Amino acid sequence: MKCTVCRGPAVIDVRRHNAAFCPDHFIVHCRDQVRRAITEHDMLSPDDRVLVAVSGGKDSLALWDLLAALDVPADGLHLRLGIGDYSTESTRAARAYASARGWTLHEVDLDADWGFTIPDAAAATHRVPCSACGLSKRHLCNQYAVEHGYDVVATGHNLDDEAAVLLGNVLRWETGYLGRQQPVLPAAPGFARKVKPLVRLGERELAAYCVIRRIDYQVEECPLASGNRHLAYKEVLNGLEHRSPGTKAAFVHGFFARGQTRFTGEDTATPLQPCATCGAPTPGEVCAFCRLRARVAERQ
Amino acid sequence: MKCTVCRGPAVIDVRRHNAAFCPDHFIVHCRDQVRRAITEHDMLSPDDRVLVAVSGGKDSLALWDLLAALDVPADGLHLRLGIGDYSTESTRAARAYASARGWTLHEVDLDADWGFTIPDAAAATHRVPCSACGLSKRHLCNQYAVEHGYDVVATGHNLDDEAAVLLGNVLRWETGYLGRQQPVLPAAPGFARKVKPLVRLGERELAAYCVIRRIDYQVEECPLASGNRHLAYKEVLNGLEHRSPGTKAAFVHGFFARGQTRFTGEDTATPLQPCATCGAPTPGEVCAFCRLRARVAERQ
Repeated sequence: MKCTVCRGPAVIDVRRHNAAFCPDHFIVHCRDQVRRAITEHDMLSPDDRVLVAVSGGKDSLALWDLLAALDVPADGLHLRLGIGDYSTESTRAARAYASARGWTLHEVDLDADWGFTIPDAAAATHRVPCSACGLSKRHLCNQYAVEHGYDVVATGHNLDDEAAVLLGNVLRWETGYLGRQQPVLPAAPGFARKVKPLVRLGERELAAYCVIRRIDYQVEECPLASGNRHLAYKEVLNGLEHRSPGTKAAFVHGFFARGQTRFTGEDTATPLQPCATCGAPTPGEVCAFCRLRARVAERQ
Repeated sequence: MKCTVCRGPAVIDVRRHNAAFCPDHFIVHCRDQVRRAITEHDMLSPDDRVLVAVSGGKDSLALWDLLAALDVPADGLHLRLGIGDYSTESTRAARAYASARGWTLHEVDLDADWGFTIPDAAAATHRVPCSACGLSKRHLCNQYAVEHGYDVVATGHNLDDEAAVLLGNVLRWETGYLGRQQPVLPAAPGFARKVKPLVRLGERELAAYCVIRRIDYQVEECPLASGNRHLAYKEVLNGLEHRSPGTKAAFVHGFFARGQTRFTGEDTATPLQPCATCGAPTPGEVCAFCRLRARVAERQ
């Protein structure tokens, strides 16, 4: 296997691009894909203050690394979720990456700052932990950005993540979620802009990126996510991708190009108002995060 | 396993309905589902002259049988496709079913009437046979209906077929195909109405229906279809259905209820005109079927 660019020995093939790369040209490929995503979807302006959501996994550390390589300075925000050893190791990886480079990593500790952990929330809601976890992460990242003057929150959602979420949304025709599944969610009063610069890179490419760049990341999957629906969708999509390379990219980018706008503008009917508890914009009286907190407190 | 209706011994479970049925109540279930599809989507009016596309497989024979049970008289149209023993046996099953009941079965013989078989067409186009086959079937069924005064063509597309086609269409965001994937395609000048009364019944239910009703059908899959994309999609959907019963029905019926209309009205931009060769309405000068015939003739 030879590098498509320089004909030197290749270390990875990218079948959907019908290409293979040596380590150096693979890094160039990753940067190109992120640059293209940013440009194509108008994700960033030169003066933006950018906050990267840093879990300590491969995607978030690769994202922070790639943004720096593209001259997009960004601070990190790490949420400590309280998921036992998994969270401890995630925090260690996030801190080690930031401190080795002298970059700013903010932290929010769900337990110390808000009085509960993700396992607490799952127990209180009797629902899959991923639901309380996603909700908490979205709320706290946005809150941190808004309160500290960041214009943009960049997250490490990759092509595989987006494809799995999209498959779940179309299988149930969740028109509200389809309307909000965008590579860029524009800023609004009380909301920073949300961008996903990794939407053109797959999971496998991001793992390879970290290995080649010698980025030490949390390699374990979250123990609470095992068996969740999105993992099943990822498996299905991997099977289809194997059979027909480019399936995931065509699915996700075809949706952004030709599907997504057909589902927008439906939830503007409900005007937002400040949450009675925390002030965050919400369609109800109390926002979903504060309702979650209240349920956990009740149980405790 | 007991029948959900009468508590007698059940012979089949229908997990997405959380139900099981004895033979008699299973037949009632199938009739109810077809009646509901017809009503819900306004498929038929009392005075309609109905033509059923009868391949000789389980879906088309079950459809003809179910329509008769619901007091919808219909004639059959069988296309002889020239796919070796597979077609011979399909024709035998279709004729046997019709003659045992004294029902009218029209026939069109692709080779004798139009000078080519599906294998000929596949060889001439260098594409998967399913593409030439689908095109020929759509064209000839519609032509027969229009020329012989039938208002409606009813086809045996079942829930699994619709789910597989829909998955293929969303994976590539084929917006034109999504706009036309409807349980009812209204009549238009040169086009009979097309209806799919089996969209609420799965493949497994239709096979069971034929067994219980002692309908002798062509059990072989078409040998030319093996390895085609839709079979892979069906496998994927079977896996998801197994994990979460009701997935296929939610996917297909959610699309009809909340997705489909978002994709309609895009191909009205191209006005239709009569095909220069056969007179069928087409957006080009010569319709796709006549172009296919010309290509096969060229090669011969």
